Amino acid sequence: MPDNVARKLIGSHLEHGEMTAGEEIAIRIDQTLTQDATGTLVMQELEALDLDRARTEVSVQYVDHNLLQTDEKNAEDHEYLRTACLRFGLWFSKPGNGVSHPTHMQRFGAPGKTMVGSDSHTPAAGSLGMLAIGVGGLEVALAIAGHPLNIRMPEIWGVRLEGELPEWCSAKDVILEMLRRHDVKGGVNRIIEYHGPGLASLTAMDRHVIANMGAELGATTSVFPSDDEVRDFLRAEGREDDWTELLADDGAEYDISDTIDLSEIEPLIAKPSSPGNVVPVREVAGEEISQVVIGSSANPGLRDFAIAAAMIDGRQTAPEVSFDVNPTSREILADLTKMGSTTQLVIGGARIHQAGCMGCIGMGQAPATGRNSLRTMPRNFPGRSGTREDSVWLCSPETAAASALTGHITDPRDWAADVGMTYPHLDFPQEHSINTAMLVEPIVAEAAAKVEPVKGPNISSLPELDELPDVIEAPVLLTVGDNISTDEISPAGARALPFRSNIPKLAQFSFTQVDETYPERAAAAEGGHIIVGGENYGQGSSREHAAIAPRHLGLRMVIAKSFARIHWQNLANFGVLAVEFDDPADHDTIEQDDVLKVTDLRASLESKDELTIENVTKGTTFGVRHRLSQRQVADVLAGGLIPRLAADAESDVQEAKETVLQDSGEIS
Amino acid sequence: MPDNVARKLIGSHLEHGEMTAGEEIAIRIDQTLTQDATGTLVMQELEALDLDRARTEVSVQYVDHNLLQTDEKNAEDHEYLRTACLRFGLWFSKPGNGVSHPTHMQRFGAPGKTMVGSDSHTPAAGSLGMLAIGVGGLEVALAIAGHPLNIRMPEIWGVRLEGELPEWCSAKDVILEMLRRHDVKGGVNRIIEYHGPGLASLTAMDRHVIANMGAELGATTSVFPSDDEVRDFLRAEGREDDWTELLADDGAEYDISDTIDLSEIEPLIAKPSSPGNVVPVREVAGEEISQVVIGSSANPGLRDFAIAAAMIDGRQTAPEVSFDVNPTSREILADLTKMGSTTQLVIGGARIHQAGCMGCIGMGQAPATGRNSLRTMPRNFPGRSGTREDSVWLCSPETAAASALTGHITDPRDWAADVGMTYPHLDFPQEHSINTAMLVEPIVAEAAAKVEPVKGPNISSLPELDELPDVIEAPVLLTVGDNISTDEISPAGARALPFRSNIPKLAQFSFTQVDETYPERAAAAEGGHIIVGGENYGQGSSREHAAIAPRHLGLRMVIAKSFARIHWQNLANFGVLAVEFDDPADHDTIEQDDVLKVTDLRASLESKDELTIENVTKGTTFGVRHRLSQRQVADVLAGGLIPRLAADAESDVQEAKETVLQDSGEIS
Repeated sequence: MPDNVARKLIGSHLEHGEMTAGEEIAIRIDQTLTQDATGTLVMQELEALDLDRARTEVSVQYVDHNLLQTDEKNAEDHEYLRTACLRFGLWFSKPGNGVSHPTHMQRFGAPGKTMVGSDSHTPAAGSLGMLAIGVGGLEVALAIAGHPLNIRMPEIWGVRLEGELPEWCSAKDVILEMLRRHDVKGGVNRIIEYHGPGLASLTAMDRHVIANMGAELGATTSVFPSDDEVRDFLRAEGREDDWTELLADDGAEYDISDTIDLSEIEPLIAKPSSPGNVVPVREVAGEEISQVVIGSSANPGLRDFAIAAAMIDGRQTAPEVSFDVNPTSREILADLTKMGSTTQLVIGGARIHQAGCMGCIGMGQAPATGRNSLRTMPRNFPGRSGTREDSVWLCSPETAAASALTGHITDPRDWAADVGMTYPHLDFPQEHSINTAMLVEPIVAEAAAKVEPVKGPNISSLPELDELPDVIEAPVLLTVGDNISTDEISPAGARALPFRSNIPKLAQFSFTQVDETYPERAAAAEGGHIIVGGENYGQGSSREHAAIAPRHLGLRMVIAKSFARIHWQNLANFGVLAVEFDDPADHDTIEQDDVLKVTDLRASLESKDELTIENVTKGTTFGVRHRLSQRQVADVLAGGLIPRLAADAESDVQEAKETVLQDSGEIS
Repeated sequence: MPDNVARKLIGSHLEHGEMTAGEEIAIRIDQTLTQDATGTLVMQELEALDLDRARTEVSVQYVDHNLLQTDEKNAEDHEYLRTACLRFGLWFSKPGNGVSHPTHMQRFGAPGKTMVGSDSHTPAAGSLGMLAIGVGGLEVALAIAGHPLNIRMPEIWGVRLEGELPEWCSAKDVILEMLRRHDVKGGVNRIIEYHGPGLASLTAMDRHVIANMGAELGATTSVFPSDDEVRDFLRAEGREDDWTELLADDGAEYDISDTIDLSEIEPLIAKPSSPGNVVPVREVAGEEISQVVIGSSANPGLRDFAIAAAMIDGRQTAPEVSFDVNPTSREILADLTKMGSTTQLVIGGARIHQAGCMGCIGMGQAPATGRNSLRTMPRNFPGRSGTREDSVWLCSPETAAASALTGHITDPRDWAADVGMTYPHLDFPQEHSINTAMLVEPIVAEAAAKVEPVKGPNISSLPELDELPDVIEAPVLLTVGDNISTDEISPAGARALPFRSNIPKLAQFSFTQVDETYPERAAAAEGGHIIVGGENYGQGSSREHAAIAPRHLGLRMVIAKSFARIHWQNLANFGVLAVEFDDPADHDTIEQDDVLKVTDLRASLESKDELTIENVTKGTTFGVRHRLSQRQVADVLAGGLIPRLAADAESDVQEAKETVLQDSGEIS
């Protein structure tokens, strides 16, 4: 039977299960990616797992999030990560080397490989014909330790691309068109596979833009074939040997099908405060702006900066606009400099920042309250910029540059007509700058075993988590609506992020974006508490802090209409029971401070999918489903995956002891 | 009588008083410079002074300190500054344009002019033959409003330079030699004037390095003649027309004289945690380091980056070192990029940051606790880096680059011998890049009058300050030792700086570096309190927050062995009585919580210099002197300069009214 690329990737790595949508499968993992905001927990988890050395082909720890170093904590985390990488045999990408996704694509990405990453934009590597999935840190730690990834087999969603993009439109407009059509839940439990004749006009880095923001659709991942464009990219990176062809078979079918005629695309923009609020740029043209930021993993390529530089060349950005440029990697900055684009940007009024995620995760360049900030970034969830009442828009580099020049939101086609500019056709270097100086290689096992990771005073150990009680009777401390993101659950930003290695401290920031009183009320509710959510609860980043921190404050159960995949798995990994309403209308019957009760949990979870919950305050009951596999049930009951693995190990030891005793005749 | 440069500068601007050391003089001010960390208060003061339009020749507001924008506060301050500049007719240098001192030198500095700046490194402009003095923000506000600067005539300290610097030594080693000889109080109440044949080998930007760090000697300012080197610099900046010759007359004399033979200089380094702890690099060579930072106003020039780039070219910085590069202006970054140096630095492992002060004022790049950080910056006061227990060393770009490559403190001569490198002789552009795009010009008065400065929610007004009571009877809440810096009184850094426009909030950080309980104890001591200090109390930055914030918490009097000039003036400006021990030994007789009492203050201050203070707790008395001019006494008694000016204005109105009444015959 002719197969598509996604099924070929899964099939070649399948360790367990059947490739039927909804069934649990286990996939062998070749590569892992971690970044510093999630990576310090991964290292603590590797310690808790007592790992000796990484068993993956390639595992890389990037430092791209916490680069500002406003006090000693970030520098100490970097030192912990560097020395932990030496200890466990991982690559270490030094602070300032670049954003994980484009840097990984440049130096390590290879067609046909699987990867998990503790960053929700890990799917960007799908641009090279990889199966790359964003997961919680603990699952990355398990992959590093050689365990397969357990997931439910997603549906494969084929998106056929036809035609070619018009001038002044680029890859960002394609993924914004997907978001315009399908919004932030459109991809849940799906792998998006792009195919068709339109691919020929999209470079590997253009595909990165599209695959990266597939995360905003809630998709498990996005994949592209490995074709000549991928070969050209790897050749320019000096790694043509890593190229293998990986194409869908003729006549391959998809579970769902969609078509985009690229020639029909126009410049699009996501309005505040969701990547799904997409409209044509012309519909909002003229809105005054005070900031424009280009860069981030959603527009990381040389072209994305060079096109903006070409538009700005010889012109000046508007006096009331802060024009911020975030190079995504040192290699791209080097090429940009060689092309003369850096100089064009600097002269045009740019603030050039160090290579890293920066403003995308609220680590600097926070805008003024309520003032419009245009960004080429992937996300604009409320407050993610670091400003509580922000107003962030997402667009292409072309739209960003045109708007920076005029001082208001501007369709680049209209700007070009005004200034009489034809669309620039740029000459890019055939060979990219390659510089591995800030990539520290793993050391040999003998030396590695002697390394003691350096832990600064802010680096705590993982908190101990107790078992799920058999009866939960606890108050609802928060009821929230649809699409609550992990940014709202456990904020990023310069205030909270430095505590990401210190759960007790970090927990004090939980949900403060939604309700400042939550941490205090949670601490007061000594018997634990419950949260009630709407659709797509926990969308956005992969950070497992969004599970661990509320858990540390006593969260026992989340009842929602539906969950985002990574957060749902993270809740299970850290022993929080996540259940979905049978009838979504029951959501509105529950008020804050209602006491809910569910009994006989151990027996119920092990035997069936349904549970009945009593609203003690209201005197009503309602049904929920947990959708957990028996493997996950065991994790939740044990208080999380780590206690469960520890218990398993102990019972193995016990079994071994008993075997020894049996053999010696002491028991029979 | 043959005159030196300093006296010529003062003499040509003297409005009042005699040029005799120690006498109060008033100097007409041509230019002002403010930066954002002090500038928002200056703008509030201009509002309080009810200014219509700046009366100086040139007044420039730079934004170089608070560039990280970890939340909305910085962006909102920038917007306030931008719109206040429009209102009052000031130049506005946008965030990211560059550090005030080198940028001002490039675009506005002119021989023969006077300048005050609300930044202690303002004297850097002395490199061009200017008289440039760092003062509190209120004095800058008064200068903008057309008032002369009142100071006591300093002694003129002539430093004769002979010979030429050896290879691998540069201007930074010259000023470190001055600090090695004279420590951080050596320049108090002095103007340092450099002269002699050694000047011919120091470019204007080399002189900037030396003049900048004259602030670390406690000097009122440093001056250089305006000679052919200054002409060359201004020509390269496209401003040869601004050049005028200003030389010391043959046979000019100085109050104090000193000589440095440049050929005897060797690479020097200031150990933690004072710029005065200077030793030869070889004496501490081999110490492991984890960070190297080049840039800042103390080594801002193109050569300072280019020499490091040339040393690093084709090599790699050590894997355990974070190598941070802070370009000082966009123009210098543009030239550095044209020379190829930016690429050399990026390839060599540098993290390139936006143009600004950054780590120098603890705004990013904070090092790990206790780990050595080598910086080309001017200051290493404890905690200034943003890390409480930091270990910061100050050195030249040559020493910094050699050490970044080896991973330990390294004399560049020894490194050069090891790698077989001869001292690089670089070709610098004859014409510098000029780019005024981020310098927003003042607008015409008619339009300016209509501008309403935009105040975000974090921008408060100046707190109201009450009169000095006639009797102070209050507890001593802190007794501190010598050389307490304004960084210890009112910390910089990313945590505190965003509140610099909000005194009540900022006050909560006062002295927390020294004693965390101070703000709370001060709030509890409702009748006010007293602080006892050692020598050189209030050294370092010009920030008037170090006076206003403790004053807001109830500080009424500081008794010290001696004061740093700017802070002493700031205390008077904000109504805190600063007095010096007659007998320094009395310092040690006072303990924390002792209650001190001084009576009859109004009559005493107005009639004599001496006061007697009773230690009520100990049952002893001791003598102090206030050294205030009658003008300053009036300020202190009124509760500060602003209340005094307001009272004067009111009494003018009252007098005018009485004149009218008299004229109309109602009173006689």
